[in-house]
Amino acid sequence: MNSFEKLSNSVERSKSLLCVGLDTSIAKLPAGIEKNVEGLLFFNRQIVEATAEYTAAYKLNFAFYEQYGSDGFDILKKTIEAIPQDKFVIADAKRGDIGNTSKAYAESAFDFFKADAITVSPYMGSDSLKPFLEYDNKMIFILALTSNPGSADFQRLEYGGTPLYQQVIKTTATYGNNQNTGYVVGATHPAELSLIRKIIPKHFLLIPGVGTQGGDAKAILKANNNSPVIINVSRDIIYSSGSVDFAESAAVRAEYYQKLLGK
Amino acid sequence: MNSFEKLSNSVERSKSLLCVGLDTSIAKLPAGIEKNVEGLLFFNRQIVEATAEYTAAYKLNFAFYEQYGSDGFDILKKTIEAIPQDKFVIADAKRGDIGNTSKAYAESAFDFFKADAITVSPYMGSDSLKPFLEYDNKMIFILALTSNPGSADFQRLEYGGTPLYQQVIKTTATYGNNQNTGYVVGATHPAELSLIRKIIPKHFLLIPGVGTQGGDAKAILKANNNSPVIINVSRDIIYSSGSVDFAESAAVRAEYYQKLLGK
Repeated sequence: MNSFEKLSNSVERSKSLLCVGLDTSIAKLPAGIEKNVEGLLFFNRQIVEATAEYTAAYKLNFAFYEQYGSDGFDILKKTIEAIPQDKFVIADAKRGDIGNTSKAYAESAFDFFKADAITVSPYMGSDSLKPFLEYDNKMIFILALTSNPGSADFQRLEYGGTPLYQQVIKTTATYGNNQNTGYVVGATHPAELSLIRKIIPKHFLLIPGVGTQGGDAKAILKANNNSPVIINVSRDIIYSSGSVDFAESAAVRAEYYQKLLGK
Repeated sequence: MNSFEKLSNSVERSKSLLCVGLDTSIAKLPAGIEKNVEGLLFFNRQIVEATAEYTAAYKLNFAFYEQYGSDGFDILKKTIEAIPQDKFVIADAKRGDIGNTSKAYAESAFDFFKADAITVSPYMGSDSLKPFLEYDNKMIFILALTSNPGSADFQRLEYGGTPLYQQVIKTTATYGNNQNTGYVVGATHPAELSLIRKIIPKHFLLIPGVGTQGGDAKAILKANNNSPVIINVSRDIIYSSGSVDFAESAAVRAEYYQKLLGK
Protein backbone atom coordinates (compact mmCIF):
# COMPACT_ATOMS: atom_id res chain seq x y z
CA MET A 1 0.00 0.00 0.00
CA ASN A 2 1.58 3.31 -1.01
CA SER A 3 1.19 6.62 0.81
CA PHE A 4 -1.57 7.91 -1.46
CA GLU A 5 -3.59 4.79 -0.71
CA LYS A 6 -2.84 4.90 3.02
CA LEU A 7 -4.00 8.51 3.23
CA SER A 8 -7.07 7.89 1.03
CA ASN A 9 -8.03 4.88 3.14
CA SER A 10 -7.61 6.83 6.35
CA VAL A 11 -9.85 9.61 5.01
CA GLU A 12 -12.51 7.02 4.09
CA ARG A 13 -12.33 5.12 7.35
CA SER A 14 -12.44 8.19 9.59
CA LYS A 15 -14.94 9.96 7.30
CA SER A 16 -12.76 12.98 7.80
CA LEU A 17 -10.59 15.40 5.83
CA LEU A 18 -9.07 16.62 9.08
CA CYS A 19 -5.37 16.55 9.91
CA VAL A 20 -4.61 17.44 13.53
CA GLY A 21 -1.44 19.50 13.93
CA LEU A 22 0.50 18.59 17.07
CA ASP A 23 2.27 21.96 17.38
CA THR A 24 2.78 21.53 21.07
CA SER A 25 4.92 23.72 23.29
CA ILE A 26 5.62 23.49 27.00
CA ALA A 27 4.62 27.10 27.64
CA LYS A 28 1.09 26.41 26.37
CA LEU A 29 0.41 23.18 28.26
CA PRO A 30 -2.88 23.27 30.19
CA ALA A 31 -2.98 23.79 33.92
CA GLY A 32 -2.20 20.66 35.92
CA ILE A 33 0.36 19.23 33.48
CA GLU A 34 4.07 19.26 34.31
CA LYS A 35 5.85 22.01 32.39
CA ASN A 36 8.56 19.86 30.85
CA VAL A 37 9.05 17.48 27.94
CA GLU A 38 7.45 14.60 29.84
CA GLY A 39 4.36 16.77 30.34
CA LEU A 40 4.43 17.54 26.64
CA LEU A 41 4.49 13.84 25.77
CA PHE A 42 1.64 13.13 28.19
CA PHE A 43 -0.38 15.95 26.60
CA ASN A 44 0.30 14.69 23.06
CA ARG A 45 -0.72 11.13 23.91
CA GLN A 46 -3.97 12.34 25.46
CA ILE A 47 -4.71 14.54 22.45
CA VAL A 48 -4.02 11.69 20.03
CA GLU A 49 -6.22 9.27 21.95
CA ALA A 50 -9.05 11.82 22.17
CA THR A 51 -8.98 12.93 18.53
CA ALA A 52 -8.06 9.76 16.58
CA GLU A 53 -11.70 8.90 15.85
CA TYR A 54 -12.22 12.18 14.04
CA THR A 55 -9.03 12.66 12.08
CA ALA A 56 -7.37 11.10 9.04
CA ALA A 57 -3.86 12.32 9.79
CA TYR A 58 -1.51 13.96 12.25
CA LYS A 59 1.04 16.59 11.33
CA LEU A 60 4.01 17.21 13.60
CA ASN A 61 5.85 20.44 13.05
CA PHE A 62 9.46 19.63 13.89
CA ALA A 63 10.25 23.18 15.07
CA PHE A 64 8.10 22.76 18.17
CA TYR A 65 10.17 19.74 19.20
CA GLU A 66 13.58 20.95 18.06
CA GLN A 67 13.25 23.95 20.35
CA TYR A 68 13.91 21.47 23.19
CA GLY A 69 16.94 19.91 21.46
CA SER A 70 17.62 16.20 21.74
CA ASP A 71 14.95 15.71 24.43
CA GLY A 72 12.45 17.28 22.05
CA PHE A 73 13.48 14.91 19.26
CA ASP A 74 12.98 12.01 21.67
CA ILE A 75 9.46 13.19 22.56
CA LEU A 76 8.70 13.68 18.87
CA LYS A 77 9.54 10.05 18.17
CA LYS A 78 7.51 8.82 21.13
CA THR A 79 4.55 10.93 20.05
CA ILE A 80 4.64 9.39 16.57
CA GLU A 81 4.79 5.92 18.16
CA ALA A 82 1.59 6.77 20.06
CA ILE A 83 -0.34 7.47 16.84
CA PRO A 84 -2.48 4.54 15.65
CA GLN A 85 -0.79 2.68 12.76
CA ASP A 86 -3.63 3.33 10.31
CA LYS A 87 -3.41 7.11 10.70
CA PHE A 88 -1.25 9.06 8.25
CA VAL A 89 1.74 10.84 9.83
CA ILE A 90 3.25 13.97 8.28
CA ALA A 91 6.69 15.22 9.33
CA ASP A 92 6.21 18.96 8.85
CA ALA A 93 9.89 19.78 8.60
CA LYS A 94 10.13 21.86 5.39
CA ARG A 95 13.51 20.35 4.56
CA GLY A 96 15.58 20.55 1.38
CA ASP A 97 19.32 20.55 0.68
CA ILE A 98 21.79 19.32 -1.95
CA GLY A 99 21.26 15.71 -3.02
CA ASN A 100 23.38 13.71 -0.56
CA THR A 101 22.17 15.91 2.29
CA SER A 102 18.48 15.59 1.43
CA LYS A 103 19.07 11.84 1.50
CA ALA A 104 20.09 12.18 5.16
CA TYR A 105 16.95 14.23 5.89
CA ALA A 106 14.86 11.50 4.23
CA GLU A 107 16.51 8.92 6.47
CA SER A 108 15.60 11.02 9.50
CA ALA A 109 11.93 11.49 8.59
CA PHE A 110 11.22 8.08 7.08
CA ASP A 111 13.63 5.61 8.71
CA PHE A 112 14.08 7.11 12.17
CA PHE A 113 10.75 8.85 12.80
CA LYS A 114 8.72 6.48 10.56
CA ALA A 115 6.62 9.29 9.12
CA ASP A 116 4.52 8.57 6.03
CA ALA A 117 5.28 11.94 4.47
CA ILE A 118 7.45 15.01 4.87
CA THR A 119 6.95 18.63 3.86
CA VAL A 120 9.81 19.98 1.70
CA SER A 121 10.90 23.36 0.36
CA PRO A 122 11.36 23.64 -3.42
CA TYR A 123 13.89 26.51 -3.51
CA MET A 124 16.95 24.31 -4.18
CA GLY A 125 15.30 22.42 -7.06
CA SER A 126 15.26 18.89 -8.40
CA ASP A 127 18.19 17.21 -6.70
CA SER A 128 17.02 18.55 -3.33
CA LEU A 129 13.66 16.78 -3.69
CA LYS A 130 14.39 13.57 -5.56
CA PRO A 131 16.13 11.70 -2.69
CA PHE A 132 12.81 11.78 -0.81
CA LEU A 133 11.04 10.24 -3.82
CA GLU A 134 13.40 7.29 -3.91
CA TYR A 135 11.52 5.79 -0.98
CA ASP A 136 8.70 3.42 -1.88
CA ASN A 137 5.47 4.10 -0.05
CA LYS A 138 6.42 7.54 1.23
CA MET A 139 5.19 10.95 0.12
CA ILE A 140 6.44 14.53 -0.04
CA PHE A 141 4.30 17.64 0.30
CA ILE A 142 6.07 20.45 -1.54
CA LEU A 143 5.56 24.03 -0.36
CA ALA A 144 3.65 25.83 -3.13
CA LEU A 145 1.58 28.77 -1.84
CA THR A 146 1.88 28.99 1.94
CA SER A 147 -0.66 30.44 4.37
CA ASN A 148 1.50 33.21 5.84
CA PRO A 149 1.76 36.91 4.86
CA GLY A 150 5.33 36.34 3.56
CA SER A 151 3.94 34.06 0.83
CA ALA A 152 3.42 37.24 -1.23
CA ASP A 153 7.15 38.12 -1.21
CA PHE A 154 8.46 35.50 -3.66
CA GLN A 155 5.80 32.83 -4.30
CA ARG A 156 3.64 35.28 -6.24
CA LEU A 157 6.38 36.82 -8.37
CA GLU A 158 5.46 36.31 -12.01
CA TYR A 159 7.70 34.90 -14.75
CA GLY A 160 6.12 35.62 -18.12
CA GLY A 161 2.69 35.69 -16.48
CA THR A 162 3.16 32.54 -14.38
CA PRO A 163 3.54 33.03 -10.62
CA LEU A 164 6.45 31.18 -9.02
CA TYR A 165 4.12 28.95 -6.96
CA GLN A 166 2.47 27.68 -10.17
CA GLN A 167 5.84 27.16 -11.83
CA VAL A 168 6.99 25.22 -8.77
CA ILE A 169 3.96 22.96 -9.12
CA LYS A 170 4.35 22.47 -12.88
CA THR A 171 8.08 21.67 -12.66
CA THR A 172 8.08 19.49 -9.56
CA ALA A 173 5.01 17.50 -10.66
CA THR A 174 7.30 15.94 -13.28
CA TYR A 175 9.71 14.59 -10.62
CA GLY A 176 7.28 12.03 -9.25
CA ASN A 177 3.56 11.37 -9.54
CA ASN A 178 0.37 11.89 -7.57
CA GLN A 179 1.08 8.74 -5.55
CA ASN A 180 4.26 10.13 -3.99
CA THR A 181 3.88 13.91 -4.34
CA GLY A 182 1.44 16.40 -2.83
CA TYR A 183 1.53 20.15 -2.23
CA VAL A 184 1.06 22.61 0.62
CA VAL A 185 -1.43 25.37 -0.20
CA GLY A 186 -2.58 27.71 2.56
CA ALA A 187 -6.30 28.01 3.38
CA THR A 188 -5.92 31.77 3.09
CA HIS A 189 -5.88 31.59 -0.76
CA PRO A 190 -9.18 30.07 -2.07
CA ALA A 191 -9.03 31.89 -5.44
CA GLU A 192 -5.56 30.56 -6.18
CA LEU A 193 -6.60 27.09 -5.07
CA SER A 194 -9.07 26.97 -7.98
CA LEU A 195 -6.23 27.75 -10.39
CA ILE A 196 -3.99 25.14 -8.78
CA ARG A 197 -6.68 22.48 -9.13
CA LYS A 198 -6.70 23.03 -12.88
CA ILE A 199 -2.98 22.16 -12.96
CA ILE A 200 -3.03 19.22 -10.53
CA PRO A 201 -6.55 17.83 -10.00
CA LYS A 202 -5.33 14.42 -8.77
CA HIS A 203 -2.58 15.30 -6.28
CA PHE A 204 -3.21 15.45 -2.57
CA LEU A 205 -3.10 18.93 -1.09
CA LEU A 206 -2.24 19.60 2.54
CA ILE A 207 -4.07 22.79 3.47
CA PRO A 208 -3.05 24.51 6.70
CA GLY A 209 -4.37 27.83 7.94
CA VAL A 210 -7.95 26.98 8.97
CA GLY A 211 -8.85 28.03 12.52
CA THR A 212 -6.46 30.38 14.31
CA GLN A 213 -4.90 31.57 11.04
CA GLY A 214 -8.34 32.56 9.69
CA GLY A 215 -8.80 30.43 6.57
CA ASP A 216 -12.43 29.85 5.53
CA ALA A 217 -13.07 26.09 5.36
CA LYS A 218 -16.18 26.29 3.18
CA ALA A 219 -14.55 28.54 0.57
CA ILE A 220 -11.56 26.21 0.47
CA LEU A 221 -13.65 23.08 0.00
CA LYS A 222 -15.58 24.70 -2.84
CA ALA A 223 -12.38 25.77 -4.59
CA ASN A 224 -10.88 22.32 -4.06
CA ASN A 225 -13.65 20.80 -6.19
CA ASN A 226 -13.60 17.33 -4.56
CA SER A 227 -9.94 16.66 -5.33
CA PRO A 228 -7.82 14.74 -2.76
CA VAL A 229 -7.21 16.95 0.24
CA ILE A 230 -6.52 17.06 3.94
CA ILE A 231 -7.02 20.17 5.99
CA ASN A 232 -4.81 20.87 8.96
CA VAL A 233 -6.02 22.47 12.18
CA SER A 234 -3.55 22.83 15.03
CA ARG A 235 -4.03 25.37 17.81
CA ASP A 236 -7.83 25.61 17.53
CA ILE A 237 -8.07 21.92 18.45
CA ILE A 238 -5.16 21.14 20.74
CA TYR A 239 -5.49 24.31 22.82
CA SER A 240 -9.28 24.62 22.77
CA SER A 241 -9.28 24.34 26.56
CA GLY A 242 -6.48 25.43 28.88
CA SER A 243 -7.86 23.33 31.70
CA VAL A 244 -8.09 19.72 32.91
CA ASP A 245 -10.74 18.95 30.30
CA PHE A 246 -8.27 19.64 27.44
CA ALA A 247 -8.60 16.19 25.89
CA GLU A 248 -12.41 16.09 25.92
CA SER A 249 -12.45 19.63 24.57
CA ALA A 250 -10.02 18.72 21.78
CA ALA A 251 -12.24 15.75 20.87
CA VAL A 252 -15.29 18.02 20.64
CA ARG A 253 -13.36 20.47 18.44
CA ALA A 254 -11.99 17.68 16.23
CA GLU A 255 -15.50 16.26 15.76
CA TYR A 256 -16.72 19.77 14.89
CA TYR A 257 -14.10 20.02 12.12
CA GLN A 258 -14.80 16.46 10.93
CA LYS A 259 -18.45 17.44 10.39
CA LEU A 260 -17.66 20.92 9.05
CA LEU A 261 -15.26 19.60 6.43
CA GLY A 262 -17.39 16.61 5.40
CA LYS A 263 -15.51 13.89 3.57
CA MET B 1 30.29 41.91 19.97
CA ASN B 2 27.82 41.05 17.23
CA SER B 3 28.07 38.12 14.83
CA PHE B 4 29.60 40.14 12.01
CA GLU B 5 32.37 41.24 14.35
CA LYS B 6 32.86 37.78 15.81
CA LEU B 7 33.22 36.29 12.34
CA SER B 8 35.48 39.12 11.12
CA ASN B 9 37.69 38.76 14.18
CA SER B 10 37.94 35.01 13.74
CA VAL B 11 38.98 35.48 10.10
CA GLU B 12 41.68 37.97 11.19
CA ARG B 13 42.97 35.88 14.06
CA SER B 14 43.16 32.61 12.11
CA LYS B 15 44.34 34.39 8.94
CA SER B 16 41.86 32.19 7.16
CA LEU B 17 38.70 32.44 5.06
CA LEU B 18 38.10 28.75 5.62
CA CYS B 19 34.96 27.25 7.17
CA VAL B 20 35.24 23.53 7.90
CA GLY B 21 32.01 21.63 7.28
CA LEU B 22 31.45 18.85 9.81
CA ASP B 23 29.20 16.76 7.54
CA THR B 24 30.01 13.60 9.38
CA SER B 25 28.30 10.26 8.93
CA ILE B 26 28.91 6.95 10.66
CA ALA B 27 29.27 5.06 7.39
CA LYS B 28 32.26 7.20 6.40
CA LEU B 29 34.20 7.08 9.68
CA PRO B 30 37.84 6.03 9.20
CA ALA B 31 39.02 2.54 10.01
CA GLY B 32 39.60 1.97 13.71
CA ILE B 33 36.77 4.19 14.96
CA GLU B 34 33.62 2.66 16.43
CA LYS B 35 30.79 2.79 13.92
CA ASN B 36 28.23 4.49 16.14
CA VAL B 37 27.33 7.99 17.37
CA GLU B 38 30.04 7.87 20.04
CA GLY B 39 32.58 7.16 17.31
CA LEU B 40 31.15 10.07 15.36
CA LEU B 41 31.60 12.41 18.32
CA PHE B 42 35.17 11.19 18.87
CA PHE B 43 35.93 11.80 15.18
CA ASN B 44 34.40 15.31 15.28
CA ARG B 45 36.37 16.28 18.37
CA GLN B 46 39.62 15.10 16.79
CA ILE B 47 38.87 16.97 13.56
CA VAL B 48 38.04 20.16 15.44
CA GLU B 49 41.21 19.97 17.51
CA ALA B 50 43.35 19.29 14.44
CA THR B 51 41.86 22.00 12.20
CA ALA B 52 41.06 24.88 14.60
CA GLU B 53 44.35 26.65 13.92
CA TYR B 54 43.56 26.93 10.22
CA THR B 55 39.88 27.79 10.15
CA ALA B 56 37.70 30.78 11.01
CA ALA B 57 34.46 28.87 11.34
CA TYR B 58 32.72 25.50 11.53
CA LYS B 59 29.51 24.63 9.73
CA LEU B 60 27.39 21.76 10.94
CA ASN B 61 24.82 20.47 8.51
CA PHE B 62 21.93 19.31 10.69
CA ALA B 63 20.84 16.59 8.25
CA PHE B 64 23.90 14.50 9.00
CA TYR B 65 22.99 14.46 12.69
CA GLU B 66 19.21 14.22 12.34
CA GLN B 67 19.62 10.99 10.40
CA TYR B 68 20.46 9.43 13.79
CA GLY B 69 17.44 10.96 15.53
CA SER B 70 17.68 12.18 19.12
CA ASP B 71 21.13 10.57 19.60
CA GLY B 72 22.32 12.52 16.58
CA PHE B 73 20.98 15.76 18.03
CA ASP B 74 22.82 15.00 21.25
CA ILE B 75 26.12 14.47 19.38
CA LEU B 76 25.50 17.66 17.42
CA LYS B 77 25.27 19.65 20.63
CA LYS B 78 28.36 17.99 22.09
CA THR B 79 30.31 18.67 18.90
CA ILE B 80 29.42 22.37 19.06
CA GLU B 81 30.52 22.42 22.70
CA ALA B 82 33.92 21.07 21.58
CA ILE B 83 34.51 24.00 19.23
CA PRO B 84 36.72 26.76 20.69
CA GLN B 85 34.60 29.74 21.84
CA ASP B 86 36.30 32.20 19.50
CA LYS B 87 35.43 30.20 16.37
CA PHE B 88 32.23 31.05 14.51
CA VAL B 89 29.61 28.27 14.46
CA ILE B 90 27.02 27.98 11.68
CA ALA B 91 23.94 25.79 12.06
CA ASP B 92 23.44 24.72 8.46
CA ALA B 93 19.78 23.81 8.83
CA LYS B 94 18.09 25.68 5.97
CA ARG B 95 15.02 26.34 8.10
CA GLY B 96 12.04 28.60 7.47
CA ASP B 97 8.36 28.44 8.44
CA ILE B 98 5.50 30.75 9.42
CA GLY B 99 6.39 33.35 12.03
CA ASN B 100 5.66 31.61 15.34
CA THR B 101 7.24 28.42 14.01
CA SER B 102 10.43 30.09 12.79
CA LYS B 103 10.69 31.51 16.30
CA ALA B 104 10.87 27.94 17.63
CA TYR B 105 13.56 27.09 15.05
CA ALA B 106 15.53 30.15 16.19
CA GLU B 107 15.29 28.94 19.79
CA SER B 108 16.67 25.58 18.71
CA ALA B 109 19.66 26.95 16.78
CA PHE B 110 20.53 29.89 19.01
CA ASP B 111 19.37 29.01 22.54
CA PHE B 112 19.77 25.23 22.57
CA PHE B 113 22.67 24.63 20.18
CA LYS B 114 24.31 28.03 20.82
CA ALA B 115 25.19 28.53 17.16
CA ASP B 116 26.31 31.99 16.03
CA ALA B 117 24.37 31.77 12.77
CA ILE B 118 21.83 29.63 10.92
CA THR B 119 21.20 29.08 7.22
CA VAL B 120 17.59 29.80 6.22
CA SER B 121 15.43 29.29 3.13
CA PRO B 122 13.71 32.40 1.71
CA TYR B 123 10.74 30.71 -0.02
CA MET B 124 8.17 31.61 2.68
CA GLY B 125 9.14 35.28 2.77
CA SER B 126 9.50 37.99 5.38
CA ASP B 127 7.70 36.60 8.43
CA SER B 128 9.60 33.31 8.05
CA LEU B 129 12.96 35.09 8.38
CA LYS B 130 12.34 37.95 10.78
CA PRO B 131 12.09 35.88 14.00
CA PHE B 132 15.73 34.89 13.51
CA LEU B 133 16.72 38.56 13.22
CA GLU B 134 15.14 39.41 16.56
CA TYR B 135 18.15 37.87 18.28
CA ASP B 136 20.93 40.28 19.14
CA ASN B 137 24.38 39.06 18.13
CA LYS B 138 23.21 36.25 15.86
CA MET B 139 23.25 36.04 12.09
CA ILE B 140 21.29 34.37 9.30
CA PHE B 141 22.70 33.18 5.99
CA ILE B 142 19.88 33.24 3.45
CA LEU B 143 19.99 30.77 0.55
CA ALA B 144 20.46 32.82 -2.62
CA LEU B 145 22.16 30.85 -5.41
CA THR B 146 23.05 27.39 -4.18
CA SER B 147 25.89 25.17 -5.43
CA ASN B 148 23.79 22.23 -6.65
CA PRO B 149 22.44 21.47 -10.15
CA GLY B 150 18.86 22.10 -8.98
CA SER B 151 19.73 25.76 -8.36
CA ALA B 152 18.87 26.32 -12.04
CA ASP B 153 15.26 25.16 -11.60
CA PHE B 154 13.80 28.15 -9.73
CA GLN B 155 16.61 30.40 -8.46
CA ARG B 156 17.46 31.51 -12.02
CA LEU B 157 13.90 32.13 -13.21
CA GLU B 158 13.67 35.74 -14.35
CA TYR B 159 11.01 38.29 -13.36
CA GLY B 160 11.23 41.25 -15.70
CA GLY B 161 14.90 40.51 -16.28
CA THR B 162 15.81 39.93 -12.62
CA PRO B 163 16.59 36.34 -11.62
CA LEU B 164 14.83 35.12 -8.48
CA TYR B 165 18.11 34.75 -6.55
CA GLN B 166 18.86 38.46 -7.10
CA GLN B 167 15.31 39.44 -6.14
CA VAL B 168 15.67 37.35 -2.97
CA ILE B 169 18.84 39.26 -2.10
CA LYS B 170 17.34 42.68 -2.86
CA THR B 171 14.16 42.05 -0.87
CA THR B 172 15.63 40.26 2.13
CA ALA B 173 18.52 42.72 2.48
CA THR B 174 15.87 45.20 3.68
CA TYR B 175 14.81 42.96 6.60
CA GLY B 176 18.04 43.35 8.52
CA ASN B 177 21.51 44.68 7.79
CA ASN B 178 24.99 43.41 7.00
CA GLN B 179 25.66 42.84 10.71
CA ASN B 180 22.94 40.19 11.06
CA THR B 181 22.36 38.95 7.50
CA GLY B 182 24.57 37.07 5.06
CA TYR B 183 23.89 34.92 1.99
CA VAL B 184 24.74 31.47 0.68
CA VAL B 185 26.18 31.51 -2.83
CA GLY B 186 27.63 28.33 -4.31
CA ALA B 187 31.26 28.27 -5.47
CA THR B 188 30.03 26.83 -8.75
CA HIS B 189 28.80 30.27 -9.94
CA PRO B 190 31.72 32.77 -10.13
CA ALA B 191 30.12 34.93 -12.87
CA GLU B 192 26.94 35.41 -10.82
CA LEU B 193 29.01 36.15 -7.73
CA SER B 194 30.36 39.27 -9.45
CA LEU B 195 26.79 40.45 -10.06
CA ILE B 196 25.81 39.68 -6.47
CA ARG B 197 28.75 41.70 -5.15
CA LYS B 198 27.42 44.76 -6.96
CA ILE B 199 24.17 44.43 -5.00
CA ILE B 200 25.62 43.57 -1.59
CA PRO B 201 29.33 44.45 -1.31
CA LYS B 202 29.30 44.56 2.50
CA HIS B 203 27.40 41.42 3.50
CA PHE B 204 29.17 38.22 4.47
CA LEU B 205 28.78 35.41 1.97
CA LEU B 206 29.04 31.77 2.93
CA ILE B 207 30.35 29.97 -0.14
CA PRO B 208 30.10 26.17 -0.19
CA GLY B 209 31.01 23.93 -3.09
CA VAL B 210 34.82 24.14 -3.15
CA GLY B 211 36.58 20.77 -3.13
CA THR B 212 34.44 17.69 -3.78
CA GLN B 213 31.69 19.73 -5.46
CA GLY B 214 34.20 21.19 -7.93
CA GLY B 215 34.07 24.94 -7.31
CA ASP B 216 37.22 26.86 -8.33
CA ALA B 217 38.55 28.77 -5.30
CA LYS B 218 40.68 31.23 -7.25
CA ALA B 219 37.86 32.23 -9.61
CA ILE B 220 35.56 32.70 -6.62
CA LEU B 221 38.01 34.89 -4.72
CA LYS B 222 38.51 37.08 -7.78
CA ALA B 223 34.76 37.50 -8.27
CA ASN B 224 34.30 38.20 -4.58
CA ASN B 225 36.47 41.30 -4.90
CA ASN B 226 37.69 41.37 -1.27
CA SER B 227 34.21 41.54 0.24
CA PRO B 228 33.50 39.69 3.53
CA VAL B 229 33.43 35.96 2.83
CA ILE B 230 33.97 32.52 4.26
CA ILE B 231 34.45 29.49 2.08
CA ASN B 232 33.23 26.12 3.23
CA VAL B 233 35.04 22.87 2.56
CA SER B 234 33.63 19.68 4.06
CA ARG B 235 34.44 16.26 2.64
CA ASP B 236 37.79 17.19 1.09
CA ILE B 237 39.09 18.03 4.58
CA ILE B 238 37.33 15.74 7.02
CA TYR B 239 37.63 12.61 4.85
CA SER B 240 41.03 13.33 3.34
CA SER B 241 42.33 10.10 4.90
CA GLY B 242 40.26 7.02 5.67
CA SER B 243 42.89 5.71 8.03
CA VAL B 244 44.27 6.25 11.56
CA ASP B 245 46.02 9.46 10.45
CA PHE B 246 42.66 11.12 9.67
CA ALA B 247 43.21 14.06 12.06
CA GLU B 248 46.75 14.86 10.90
CA SER B 249 45.60 14.53 7.32
CA ALA B 250 42.64 16.87 7.93
CA ALA B 251 45.02 19.42 9.49
CA VAL B 252 47.28 19.29 6.42
CA ARG B 253 44.28 19.75 4.13
CA ALA B 254 42.88 22.61 6.26
CA GLU B 255 46.26 24.37 6.19
CA TYR B 256 46.36 23.87 2.40
CA TYR B 257 43.00 25.66 2.08
CA GLN B 258 44.00 28.37 4.55
CA LYS B 259 46.99 29.17 2.31
CA LEU B 260 45.08 28.71 -0.96
CA LEU B 261 42.29 31.08 0.07
CA GLY B 262 44.57 33.69 1.64
CA LYS B 263 42.84 36.10 3.97
